[in-house]
Amino acid sequence: MRITFEELQAQFVRILKKYTFADDKAQLCARLFAQNTLDGVHSHGLNRFPTFIQYIEKGYVNVGAEVTKQESFGSWERWNGHLGPGNLNAYSSMNRAIELAKTYGMSCVALNNTNHWMRGGTYGWQAAEAGCISICFTNTLPNMPPWGGTENRIGNNPLVIAVPRKEGHLVLDTAMSLYSYGKMDVYKRKNQPLPFDGGFDSAGNLSKDAEAILEAKRPLPIGYWKGSGLSMMLDMLAALLSKGNAVNDIGQLESEYGLSQVFICFDADRANTPFIEQVTGELISYIKSSAPMKEGEEVYYPGERTLLTRQENLEKGISVDEEIWNKLLQM
Amino acid sequence: MRITFEELQAQFVRILKKYTFADDKAQLCARLFAQNTLDGVHSHGLNRFPTFIQYIEKGYVNVGAEVTKQESFGSWERWNGHLGPGNLNAYSSMNRAIELAKTYGMSCVALNNTNHWMRGGTYGWQAAEAGCISICFTNTLPNMPPWGGTENRIGNNPLVIAVPRKEGHLVLDTAMSLYSYGKMDVYKRKNQPLPFDGGFDSAGNLSKDAEAILEAKRPLPIGYWKGSGLSMMLDMLAALLSKGNAVNDIGQLESEYGLSQVFICFDADRANTPFIEQVTGELISYIKSSAPMKEGEEVYYPGERTLLTRQENLEKGISVDEEIWNKLLQM
Repeated sequence: MRITFEELQAQFVRILKKYTFADDKAQLCARLFAQNTLDGVHSHGLNRFPTFIQYIEKGYVNVGAEVTKQESFGSWERWNGHLGPGNLNAYSSMNRAIELAKTYGMSCVALNNTNHWMRGGTYGWQAAEAGCISICFTNTLPNMPPWGGTENRIGNNPLVIAVPRKEGHLVLDTAMSLYSYGKMDVYKRKNQPLPFDGGFDSAGNLSKDAEAILEAKRPLPIGYWKGSGLSMMLDMLAALLSKGNAVNDIGQLESEYGLSQVFICFDADRANTPFIEQVTGELISYIKSSAPMKEGEEVYYPGERTLLTRQENLEKGISVDEEIWNKLLQM
Repeated sequence: MRITFEELQAQFVRILKKYTFADDKAQLCARLFAQNTLDGVHSHGLNRFPTFIQYIEKGYVNVGAEVTKQESFGSWERWNGHLGPGNLNAYSSMNRAIELAKTYGMSCVALNNTNHWMRGGTYGWQAAEAGCISICFTNTLPNMPPWGGTENRIGNNPLVIAVPRKEGHLVLDTAMSLYSYGKMDVYKRKNQPLPFDGGFDSAGNLSKDAEAILEAKRPLPIGYWKGSGLSMMLDMLAALLSKGNAVNDIGQLESEYGLSQVFICFDADRANTPFIEQVTGELISYIKSSAPMKEGEEVYYPGERTLLTRQENLEKGISVDEEIWNKLLQM
């Protein structure tokens, strides 16, 4: 079934208010969840919302908490998220990074003691809308084995890089695991093999069998040893720049909270906006001029398909899982 | 055969002076080539040196050029490399980024119109030695197809992330391709299959056959679509922040020059050096506590094996290819 963006957002607002969110925070939090769903990222939109509410019920998320500044080194600031709602904390941190970039040219807001930011791409789109080039990343609980090991000791640590562009921002949002647990779950339910080896089974063999990988809890880092190293370094940066928890600290908690995140911005005006338009335009044309792997297909730039999905969902309504939607109406 | 670091460096100095390098520049350039070889990165050390000299002979590298500042936005500066030696330009840019980070807390030096920086890790080690956390990356000529395409339109764009640590810095140096052309060439010569699919053959099938991939010129990005997207975004950042060439511009030149590079630094003292020691130490222990894939093996942190190689080569002398060493003696 399909519902409108407004219906979805209104339901989120209603429920968030029940959970003591102030009106402005309920509106923003609901908008972020609704936009993720609108963009087709259900795993961090509608489908994630019930878990988000559970985390509030369990006390992992402090509804009323506000981020506070801990240290300032000029264009680089450290903030404490006080375990507030992860998407509100991240949104507020990126806003601060944008503000600092407009002042200093470049900036870094490093946030400790926060919660899951839901969809990382949200903050790339946010910075691009505000005319900033941005890099942001988060650490997570240990959900992947480091290369050479079999037990989970590193996170999938999503990394977002975004560039503003009039015809459509470029937004890359990529975890350091090849497939998310959510994506593997979809293949498991459909009883379909993954397109590429996505991890190891319990016997230690590379596998396309999502169920076997989920059972072994051994998802594969992108580029094997390369993504494993990238994950370690992003985690280090997040913990060190924010003076927050690293993956080993998070792994000792009973659930995923107390995360560290980094928001880096560059002011696009200083980068020269007409130059950005020219370079991104030419680069996109160039990339798309590569002959396609399969006839009739084409090469996409990061963020392009999100825009297409958003457009379709705005026109036709957002396609949602009826069971989850009905569950939401009962909440 | 094995030679000493000093012998190697002295030969490089001798040749560079023949090619009109001033004494201080010959010393530094030779040291960087010798250190890459000492660390086991022959492809950007001794084995690359003859090609570096060819580039000078062909006029792609301007021996006497000095980097000049083009624009300053405070902690973010744009520099022009004037097609000087790539390793000297990059070294000088990282030095400037370190200097700016000590002043401002964080910094970015974006360099346009430069040459191949040889081994990216060099500049991560350099920043770590100077007490900075760093992120740096370069673009390259189009040497990889974007995901969904068959013709080379993106670069392998090496990315370096480094964190200083007393017992051994953490330095990740990773290209966006799973295997470099150099590495695939090694497998081709040995007539051995790659450990993992490294690209597509001419028929469009994923392959472990290095020769077939080299023939098809279709190396694989790390994580398939993910590394392809990362490569595009790193290229955008390099071109936009430096106001330099993007991969499409470089692809129109007759050889690989006129590159764009980015050097980002954070001052470790502000990040809190004792905190860095504690976090990196705990995180390394934690990662190493993962049961190994193969009995007797262990999990390494980025940079660990480089240190082991360096130590071994310092003790026993640097193992070099005799043919290339003799060629060097004739130059």
